[in-house]
Amino acid sequence: MTTNALRGIIVAVFHSPIIANGVSMARKNAFYAQSGGVTSVINASAAGVIEAARNSDIIDKVYAGRNGIIGALTEDLIDTSLESAESIAALKHTPGGAFGSCRYKLGDVETNRRQYERLIEVFKAHNIGYFFYNGGGDSADTCLKVSQLSETLGYPIQAIHVPKTVDNDLPFTDCSPGFGSVAKYTAVSIKEAALDVASMCATSTKVFIMEVMGRHAGWIAAAAGLAKDKPEAAPHIIIFPERVFDKEAFLKKVDQCVADYGYCVVAVSEGARYADGSFLADAGSVDAFGHKQLGGVAPVLAQMVRDELGHKYHWAVPDYLQRAGRHIASATDVEQAYAVGKAAVEFAAAGKNAVMPAIKRQQDKPYVWTIEEAPLAEVANVEVGMPDNFISEDGFGITEAARTYLAPLIMGEPDTPFKDGLPVHAELKLVAVEKKLNDHFEI
Amino acid sequence: MTTNALRGIIVAVFHSPIIANGVSMARKNAFYAQSGGVTSVINASAAGVIEAARNSDIIDKVYAGRNGIIGALTEDLIDTSLESAESIAALKHTPGGAFGSCRYKLGDVETNRRQYERLIEVFKAHNIGYFFYNGGGDSADTCLKVSQLSETLGYPIQAIHVPKTVDNDLPFTDCSPGFGSVAKYTAVSIKEAALDVASMCATSTKVFIMEVMGRHAGWIAAAAGLAKDKPEAAPHIIIFPERVFDKEAFLKKVDQCVADYGYCVVAVSEGARYADGSFLADAGSVDAFGHKQLGGVAPVLAQMVRDELGHKYHWAVPDYLQRAGRHIASATDVEQAYAVGKAAVEFAAAGKNAVMPAIKRQQDKPYVWTIEEAPLAEVANVEVGMPDNFISEDGFGITEAARTYLAPLIMGEPDTPFKDGLPVHAELKLVAVEKKLNDHFEI
Repeated sequence: MTTNALRGIIVAVFHSPIIANGVSMARKNAFYAQSGGVTSVINASAAGVIEAARNSDIIDKVYAGRNGIIGALTEDLIDTSLESAESIAALKHTPGGAFGSCRYKLGDVETNRRQYERLIEVFKAHNIGYFFYNGGGDSADTCLKVSQLSETLGYPIQAIHVPKTVDNDLPFTDCSPGFGSVAKYTAVSIKEAALDVASMCATSTKVFIMEVMGRHAGWIAAAAGLAKDKPEAAPHIIIFPERVFDKEAFLKKVDQCVADYGYCVVAVSEGARYADGSFLADAGSVDAFGHKQLGGVAPVLAQMVRDELGHKYHWAVPDYLQRAGRHIASATDVEQAYAVGKAAVEFAAAGKNAVMPAIKRQQDKPYVWTIEEAPLAEVANVEVGMPDNFISEDGFGITEAARTYLAPLIMGEPDTPFKDGLPVHAELKLVAVEKKLNDHFEI
Repeated sequence: MTTNALRGIIVAVFHSPIIANGVSMARKNAFYAQSGGVTSVINASAAGVIEAARNSDIIDKVYAGRNGIIGALTEDLIDTSLESAESIAALKHTPGGAFGSCRYKLGDVETNRRQYERLIEVFKAHNIGYFFYNGGGDSADTCLKVSQLSETLGYPIQAIHVPKTVDNDLPFTDCSPGFGSVAKYTAVSIKEAALDVASMCATSTKVFIMEVMGRHAGWIAAAAGLAKDKPEAAPHIIIFPERVFDKEAFLKKVDQCVADYGYCVVAVSEGARYADGSFLADAGSVDAFGHKQLGGVAPVLAQMVRDELGHKYHWAVPDYLQRAGRHIASATDVEQAYAVGKAAVEFAAAGKNAVMPAIKRQQDKPYVWTIEEAPLAEVANVEVGMPDNFISEDGFGITEAARTYLAPLIMGEPDTPFKDGLPVHAELKLVAVEKKLNDHFEI
């Protein structure tokens, strides 16, 4: 993307050499943090950042925030330079957030200026010149603010956002790394479970309901539709948050499927809503970002089926299993997650600031994509919904347009080493960087 | 196991040649049916039966019962000889029951003699001399009764039971085919999800509860324990049906884990019970075998955690995903499932009747197993529980003895072909055999 020669020139422009211990050092350290709900491939992005940084002329060490941005605020930094090349490479097949993530949103700059000042203090103390923040829309916003504040406060930081979210709701990018793998998990799982239901429906379960993630958008629910390779195949019904839940139409379609095929398989988004906007399953609690916590729409639908139709039912809520299922990740997703991490470092080397590497689709089939630059000012806090033409006319399925978009994202089975029948995951040392400020910061 | 020469001799002893169309035919047809809850590898047993039958001197065609034994009662037989070798081979990586299974238990012989007479009528009409019944304890019982009745009714049938059940509760055999794969699904899933929880626990979910199958025995719950490769690793708590649920001890241990590790991962069997024998999650309905239908113990525990401890929680109920998850099956299990199917035909060829191929463990590590013969009279209706010494002293974990037993069963990743990012499954023609009786039998 950028040549080393070009990098060298840009570094010379953006960074004055620092003299320390009599040695000329142009390189600064980088801060990397994971934010929000993790995915099965966010660590592939971490590997992309760290491996590219190790090969770069501009970055000395990558310090990872323990538990995300909280690690920066509390000066709890992990020295990734102490991790072996093998451990960093193993991040490519390790789900979860290897350095810890957090649900912690920095306040707005006006009322929470101290938080931002604190970040700059910590970055200054540790000679950090690059801020790589790996998350969704909320963290893109944080990233942008850090970039803006660093200017105001006179300490230069290049802030690059590394996209990630299973919700697939980031703008500019063809998809959000993390989504392709949960999409694949969902399509594979419902395809397999449907075979189970189909084989038993004569005398047992006739209706199977699988709940999937997706608070505001039906991306993951739509991905279930990839399993439907012929008209009679499952899932027979998908329930999207984009459509008001119509109980009567739902039950009618369930009954029709049971009559036509002997069984009915349903994929339902956790965000399924009634006409008044209330969620079918509303747990009533709220997380740190102000998002409602959901869970349990599948049993609600199952009860409707039992009470109104009397069919035997089963339901599944894979919950975290879907976004941690690295064993069935999409190779395309793993590659993209790694690529955006690597590109973030390359963007930094090219002197860029307040940007995000975005995936640009060049071609559907075979899928061809490149990495482009998206300005954070236009990414932050923008939530992209699923196009309306992705949902079929009756509201219970996906269209060819959706299929064309989704199909490439689940392609390929990535390398996944196993030992003793279990997947092998990175074992990191996670050694803390010695504190320089050594004070207490209340978060 | 048996040489072709030996087979030839035994066939000569057991079967009188039949003259049809002027050609001497010693071979009879075989009936194969799948029974009860399916698994991700029951079709591998079907492949074992059908491929071995195609290579055998004693079997002409294998007729599969559509929807299990119901297909025999209603004379709805599938002619597997019309399926290509490729399709039959593809059964080895196809979950569910390819010919349809059923929850339908034949009554006792005294009051339901007509059912058994009907089976013999159908077998007679289609020149069926071999009965391969692929299921758990209930179907072993059916298999035994068919064998006994065939003697009484003067039509010779060799009845061989092919073991299968994710419940792992069959006697004589080291394990029940189907169990190893659900064990692997469970251990892999909880290992992955635990990484997710661990990375978020500082600010988000602290307690994750995953519900697994196992009505009466904690085999699958115990398998979750394989993910625990060091004292601090998940799962931190396993709840077995073999131990009375102690709410106070459970909550105390959850709280201790959160204090010690920052989070707590729980695997709970659907069969978890209170001291009075009632299930924690009792849906109240009953299936055809008289088993209570369960589901939803995970949310019950989650509510306890929320109400009594106030920790943020998530819960998962993979339900059918666990027993359909062929994409993460155990290679050992696939091999064993195939082997018991193949051995069933070899037993038939050796003239055996009312037996089951059982897996005999010869060595733990590396795992060495052979196939032996178990008498159905001692298999039928015997439910084997988990040894008491498999559960740790505090009742919330597994012992080294359990680990030694379980570890080999999840070993190896079998071939699983994918196309367009999704697993490829067998596409069978499922052509019905022309009816000879052509009457209606009320089941």
